[in-house]
Amino acid sequence: PANRVPTPTAPAPDILRCAYMEIVVTDLAASREFYVDVLGLVVTEEDETTIYLRSFEEFIHHNLVLRQGPVAAVAAFSYRVRTPEDLDKAVAFYTELGCRVERNAAGYTKGIGDSVRVEDPLGFPYEFFHDVDHVERLAWAYHLQTPGCLVRLDHFNQVTPDVPRAVAYMEDLGFRVTEDIQDEAGTTYAAWMRRKPTVHDTAMTGGDGPRMHHVAFATHEKHNIIAICDKLGALRKSDTIERGPGRHGVSNAFYLYLRDPDGHRVEIYTQDYYTGDPDNPVVTWDVHDNQRRDWWGNPVVPSWYTDASLVLDLDGQPQPLVARTDDSEMEVTVGADGFSYTRKEDGDFKLGHTL
Amino acid sequence: PANRVPTPTAPAPDILRCAYMEIVVTDLAASREFYVDVLGLVVTEEDETTIYLRSFEEFIHHNLVLRQGPVAAVAAFSYRVRTPEDLDKAVAFYTELGCRVERNAAGYTKGIGDSVRVEDPLGFPYEFFHDVDHVERLAWAYHLQTPGCLVRLDHFNQVTPDVPRAVAYMEDLGFRVTEDIQDEAGTTYAAWMRRKPTVHDTAMTGGDGPRMHHVAFATHEKHNIIAICDKLGALRKSDTIERGPGRHGVSNAFYLYLRDPDGHRVEIYTQDYYTGDPDNPVVTWDVHDNQRRDWWGNPVVPSWYTDASLVLDLDGQPQPLVARTDDSEMEVTVGADGFSYTRKEDGDFKLGHTL
Amino acid sequence: PANRVPTPTAPAPDILRCAYMEIVVTDLAASREFYVDVLGLVVTEEDETTIYLRSFEEFIHHNLVLRQGPVAAVAAFSYRVRTPEDLDKAVAFYTELGCRVERNAAGYTKGIGDSVRVEDPLGFPYEFFHDVDHVERLAWAYHLQTPGCLVRLDHFNQVTPDVPRAVAYMEDLGFRVTEDIQDEAGTTYAAWMRRKPTVHDTAMTGGDGPRMHHVAFATHEKHNIIAICDKLGALRKSDTIERGPGRHGVSNAFYLYLRDPDGHRVEIYTQDYYTGDPDNPVVTWDVHDNQRRDWWGNPVVPSWYTDASLVLDLDGQPQPLVARTDDSEMEVTVGADGFSYTRKEDGDFKLGHTL
Amino acid sequence: PANRVPTPTAPAPDILRCAYMEIVVTDLAASREFYVDVLGLVVTEEDETTIYLRSFEEFIHHNLVLRQGPVAAVAAFSYRVRTPEDLDKAVAFYTELGCRVERNAAGYTKGIGDSVRVEDPLGFPYEFFHDVDHVERLAWAYHLQTPGCLVRLDHFNQVTPDVPRAVAYMEDLGFRVTEDIQDEAGTTYAAWMRRKPTVHDTAMTGGDGPRMHHVAFATHEKHNIIAICDKLGALRKSDTIERGPGRHGVSNAFYLYLRDPDGHRVEIYTQDYYTGDPDNPVVTWDVHDNQRRDWWGNPVVPSWYTDASLVLDLDGQPQPLVARTDDSEMEVTVGADGFSYTRKEDGDFKLGHTL
Ligand SMILES: [Ca+2]
Ligand SMILES: [Fe+2]
Ligand SMILES: [Fe+2]
Ligand SMILES: [Fe+2]
Ligand SMILES: [Fe+2]
Repeated sequence: PANRVPTPTAPAPDILRCAYMEIVVTDLAASREFYVDVLGLVVTEEDETTIYLRSFEEFIHHNLVLRQGPVAAVAAFSYRVRTPEDLDKAVAFYTELGCRVERNAAGYTKGIGDSVRVEDPLGFPYEFFHDVDHVERLAWAYHLQTPGCLVRLDHFNQVTPDVPRAVAYMEDLGFRVTEDIQDEAGTTYAAWMRRKPTVHDTAMTGGDGPRMHHVAFATHEKHNIIAICDKLGALRKSDTIERGPGRHGVSNAFYLYLRDPDGHRVEIYTQDYYTGDPDNPVVTWDVHDNQRRDWWGNPVVPSWYTDASLVLDLDGQPQPLVARTDDSEMEVTVGADGFSYTRKEDGDFKLGHTL
Repeated sequence: PANRVPTPTAPAPDILRCAYMEIVVTDLAASREFYVDVLGLVVTEEDETTIYLRSFEEFIHHNLVLRQGPVAAVAAFSYRVRTPEDLDKAVAFYTELGCRVERNAAGYTKGIGDSVRVEDPLGFPYEFFHDVDHVERLAWAYHLQTPGCLVRLDHFNQVTPDVPRAVAYMEDLGFRVTEDIQDEAGTTYAAWMRRKPTVHDTAMTGGDGPRMHHVAFATHEKHNIIAICDKLGALRKSDTIERGPGRHGVSNAFYLYLRDPDGHRVEIYTQDYYTGDPDNPVVTWDVHDNQRRDWWGNPVVPSWYTDASLVLDLDGQPQPLVARTDDSEMEVTVGADGFSYTRKEDGDFKLGHTL
Repeated sequence: PANRVPTPTAPAPDILRCAYMEIVVTDLAASREFYVDVLGLVVTEEDETTIYLRSFEEFIHHNLVLRQGPVAAVAAFSYRVRTPEDLDKAVAFYTELGCRVERNAAGYTKGIGDSVRVEDPLGFPYEFFHDVDHVERLAWAYHLQTPGCLVRLDHFNQVTPDVPRAVAYMEDLGFRVTEDIQDEAGTTYAAWMRRKPTVHDTAMTGGDGPRMHHVAFATHEKHNIIAICDKLGALRKSDTIERGPGRHGVSNAFYLYLRDPDGHRVEIYTQDYYTGDPDNPVVTWDVHDNQRRDWWGNPVVPSWYTDASLVLDLDGQPQPLVARTDDSEMEVTVGADGFSYTRKEDGDFKLGHTL
Repeated sequence: PANRVPTPTAPAPDILRCAYMEIVVTDLAASREFYVDVLGLVVTEEDETTIYLRSFEEFIHHNLVLRQGPVAAVAAFSYRVRTPEDLDKAVAFYTELGCRVERNAAGYTKGIGDSVRVEDPLGFPYEFFHDVDHVERLAWAYHLQTPGCLVRLDHFNQVTPDVPRAVAYMEDLGFRVTEDIQDEAGTTYAAWMRRKPTVHDTAMTGGDGPRMHHVAFATHEKHNIIAICDKLGALRKSDTIERGPGRHGVSNAFYLYLRDPDGHRVEIYTQDYYTGDPDNPVVTWDVHDNQRRDWWGNPVVPSWYTDASLVLDLDGQPQPLVARTDDSEMEVTVGADGFSYTRKEDGDFKLGHTL
């Protein structure tokens, strides 16, 4: 990519996994209702302004922080690193990149030990930590689990204008690409990257950025995701369902996208595959393949392409957006000149049939 | 309703259940691939022009007949009656109504004993039979069952212009309404009616008719329906998925709509509820309730409203269509002046958000 | 059978379905915890001595009555009949049989209208009613449903010494046999009989009786039953699991047997098949077929064969037991001279392998 | 432990995951029927004497090798390592331990590149390889998948007399303990250890060894495991079900144990939890806790404790067994002086109730 983020000489921190996201919400009570009463996440701790939530198989303090604030946005994409020393590596890595880097003492975020927050080269507030309070893993606590039980934080998804540039930087940070979406001309529309051996810890989605596209929690089975939809219907909140449920082409997972009361997008996700071998085959999807984002060919709603959450700089101010200049996935697939096929060989366009 | 079908003095035949549908297909090999190779229905018998299919829990000869013919259409909606004498009742009932009635000897349709076919007052080719060949009930034949195993014929769905008129006639025939869709002015858009104690053996959907809207087969669980979608994706036939999967408001069942190679619509359906008590509560849905047809508020695609299959008269000629003059459900819910709400009290229209 | 119950000349009442069971429990709080907190049945109404419970798809007042009393027992097996006039038929039918018959005015049991209770020829307290209070059908109330949601009362199961005698009487009462267990000599060990078109509304299990073997509630899917087991483990109540989960041979349903705090047995059950046609094929299982009671060949625990609940006469006194004189299923299958096979042709006895 | 395996000064190879098991079977056709026709594993390649099988989400050549031979046994527990250089590390590591070590050129096993086989300090034939042929990952091939689809090799399970000794050696090899079973006196009965971040790549079960206890494949959902049981019933092979299905306490996974035609034990397994953090909490179960091996308290059949497969040395000769001298889990839990409780505090022994 033009304008490539230089590869630091300093080694990257050894990232274990995406660990938690901190989001700013404008109505904490409404968000609590959504994440706790509807989705059933576990409250580890809460006070007047902040709620710390975790999934049922988690043993660290939280996977999601809801913080009351004036503007809905994302304050941190937080990764756990293997050792305390990896924080020093993170500092060196990002300092060499010329990024703003802040080291925070234990307790800066409740439950989290020493941490490093940076404004990364793409403009995202990334955080790294190792020390963390342990809490009860509620995997066996079936008496507390709901039909739509969320068992694990699975991944983040970020919107950024130049996907290859983002991928190159993330590979320097130690991530590996598992799948991506391209066209014949070589434009990359999105890429999925992992540290833990699932399809991703985060994905880069092409668009005006930096923005947060979604945060995803895993269930055990598909019926758990259906149960969330059914419950939303019963609560007359079905309009929080933005897209799905469906089967992804990319990742092969079963999915659902919801919008929280501030419009932050939450994915519920289950059953992707093991990717931990170093030569794990990368799957590249044709952007015109109508089964790439939904294996059943069901349409992606426009809001899913266009909407995303602002992200904050380390002063808590929204990052300005940089426009994507590469082709837009929505335009090339459902736009006036765009197209999608079910079978490449026969040029059969499902979209024209059903919309 | 104006133009009410008169109530015969002759008693109605005692109908047990919807038993099979006979459809004319224009490419028998293509239809066989769809119903047998993809959907996994069991071939009881077949010859050059006709295939007799059944579901895995069925013990009568067939639930679906595919007959090669020049025009895709439905030749019979066939119901099983309790006794051979009910055929005489059917003859008397429809004769009194001035309908064309034909009595066919055993073997007119393979596997079926004596039968009566009529052109009913709504223009549909209805059939009644009692005697039938028994075949092996493959409920325990798990070694033959696929992930999307179809276990039972569940119901028919018919398109007819005047739903209240159709309901009154069907009640005379012994059916009971379990659910319907109305508006505040009292217009009825659709009604579900049963003989066996499920939500329906057939439904009447308002529209230009007589046409066949769909035929529905049941699976045991929701994942079986998802497996059908996944398989269609793998076969690069996802464009046969027209709508869903989703959860119905009406019937509370989990559903999927497919289109066969001729465009005949097939629903896959699971988990409605027991309706066998005579005072079973009728559920009336507001046509503007956006959760009535999809409990999750996902949009109904236009083709689902507009497309349906022709039905044949007893000479095998397509019945001419009579236009619906009552309001159209599509127009009043998603048309220029139509609307739908998620929560009646706040007038929040989901459709405007997502389409 | 010898000592056949005579067939009354009076016509049988038209029974719709098994509707509720009234059981006497010795510790109402403990029973409430089991049925409400653990199993999640819905409390329609309750007072100091009695709790009225229903399943999520029910619209009549209750499917289970828990009544505090000195001796754990069953006070009523209650069936709903089609019309109020069927109560007169029930009175005439049982009066002709010389049974004790009592007519109770509406409100004798809360929520239930006029009813008839009898001591039937087998010694069971049978009840019939038509009028009943309607309550909300919570089928769509997904926000209230638990992972192990019970949606329907499915059937009763009774222990009686002479199964053919019981079957003949029940056929006179309008029931039809769907499956049974016999041996080559013609001894019948158990029989399943239905009014509604499922495999049964009640079954007769051979043994010292009259006793109540179990009452069964249905879930939608198999994972709902597994969720009940998981929850019992989490609550450290796994010792309430007596047998299963497993797949029945008879009925083809997925099952679980629990014991309530008084030892009353409750089955959780899902996915049998439609039996509503008059010529529905009867399935007869060989008592030595090791897959008849568990399709996977897992052993039936002895307590399942030996334990059952007392039933009360109309004065509330336990009925004395009559011993079974026919062969015992436990003895002929796992007893010293008994045997079971997986494949009849090779005489391979699984039991010897694993126990 | 006494007789501790010394810690080598040479660094351990970097093991990615358990990759395949090679088993010797005495009737290849019978084994093919079991693994291919019944369980649905994918044949990558086969010849007169050997069949190479993989699961549906695998991209390396095989997860299981069936080799015709005179004595049923295990020829290799094979692990994939991160780099080719890790083979040199394996050689150095085991050479320092005084083990017999053989280096095999690519093709020694079809599809596998250079490999190292050792007779490890516990007597097991361990193999390490990096280079391997890639084959199609059939994750998206839903048209080929059966109701009981096996998607991944999950783990091995080994029988060894001295579990703490085995654990110490395996920790030197880079494994981490995730769960174990102990008693109050500190005896360890079994331990689960992982490289990939699931509960285990292998487990050590206390008993006369070295023997192979089982090899485990994963499904996506619980109903897939139930489908395998149902199919075995339909094929009249239910006697291949040894234990389960059930929910493990240890690992929290849903399980089933089968025995192949030679008695090799195969587990089907789904839904354990992420263990990849270095401080992942170890779960220690009390050997007397009746929910440790089955969360529902269902009994473990004796054969599960006593039977296991021989393992071969590098000459293909069965390794002699060393007897366990520590207490036996079966004896201390179900033996004459053994006991198990459901609730530790009330000393309630489920076993006495039901067996
Ligand atoms: Ca068992
Ligand atoms: Fe995602
Ligand atoms: Fe339908
Ligand atoms: Fe039962
Ligand atoms: Fe295992």
